[in-house]
Amino acid sequence: MKDCIFCKIIKKEIHSYIIYEDKNVIAFLDINPSSQGHALVIPKKHYEYILKMPDKEYSDLLLKSKKIAKAIDSSLKPIRTCIVVEGFAVNHVHIRLHPCYEKHLNLQPMKDKPSDSEFKETAKKIKSLLK
Amino acid sequence: MKDCIFCKIIKKEIHSYIIYEDKNVIAFLDINPSSQGHALVIPKKHYEYILKMPDKEYSDLLLKSKKIAKAIDSSLKPIRTCIVVEGFAVNHVHIRLHPCYEKHLNLQPMKDKPSDSEFKETAKKIKSLLK
Repeated sequence: MKDCIFCKIIKKEIHSYIIYEDKNVIAFLDINPSSQGHALVIPKKHYEYILKMPDKEYSDLLLKSKKIAKAIDSSLKPIRTCIVVEGFAVNHVHIRLHPCYEKHLNLQPMKDKPSDSEFKETAKKIKSLLK
Repeated sequence: MKDCIFCKIIKKEIHSYIIYEDKNVIAFLDINPSSQGHALVIPKKHYEYILKMPDKEYSDLLLKSKKIAKAIDSSLKPIRTCIVVEGFAVNHVHIRLHPCYEKHLNLQPMKDKPSDSEFKETAKKIKSLLK
């Protein structure tokens, strides 16, 4: 969809730190992460509301989110990775994966945003487990 | 599991406002809701971490959560219902369904907790769409 930032990421018109991609789904690091490895998993088809997705596509998106969250756990060693589906900020369905390094779900962006090389390093670690 | 509050809810040893139940899943209203209709969907089998659930049971839990969230939307008319999977407070997998009546995901409990009759009325409305 025109003017949708996530559709532009899918078309590679906007740069992102991609950690997973297949025919239907793409996952990349959140540019304003709440913690190291905070990622977004989105369907390539533009849906505005997750509950309006067909069951098959919804399940596919969530199973891939599980696989990606497990790769985050294995590579970055948070206590656990939490899942949040909200969607008020960007009107394109996205599953937020929040690695929690403390026993608390923090949704606020980190004070010190990672550098380009830190983003690349984090993406590389997760991606290496998703091949 | 002994001493698990959600296992006690499943066994009906602790009262809850149930909105859905089948062989594998039970859903009930959160007793400290962030908004009207805030519900929890849990597997009857005690898993501690959602990423450790087998894919089939994970998908079943999330498809039923979708169905229940749609019933919340239809009966209570929030803008949308958000999904949060965190799990630090109770060590039994639970999908939190947060109906949002404003364009904002609020995780804090309501200041005025609903009365028993208000909980019953809310549960009845949602349940009537899940038969």
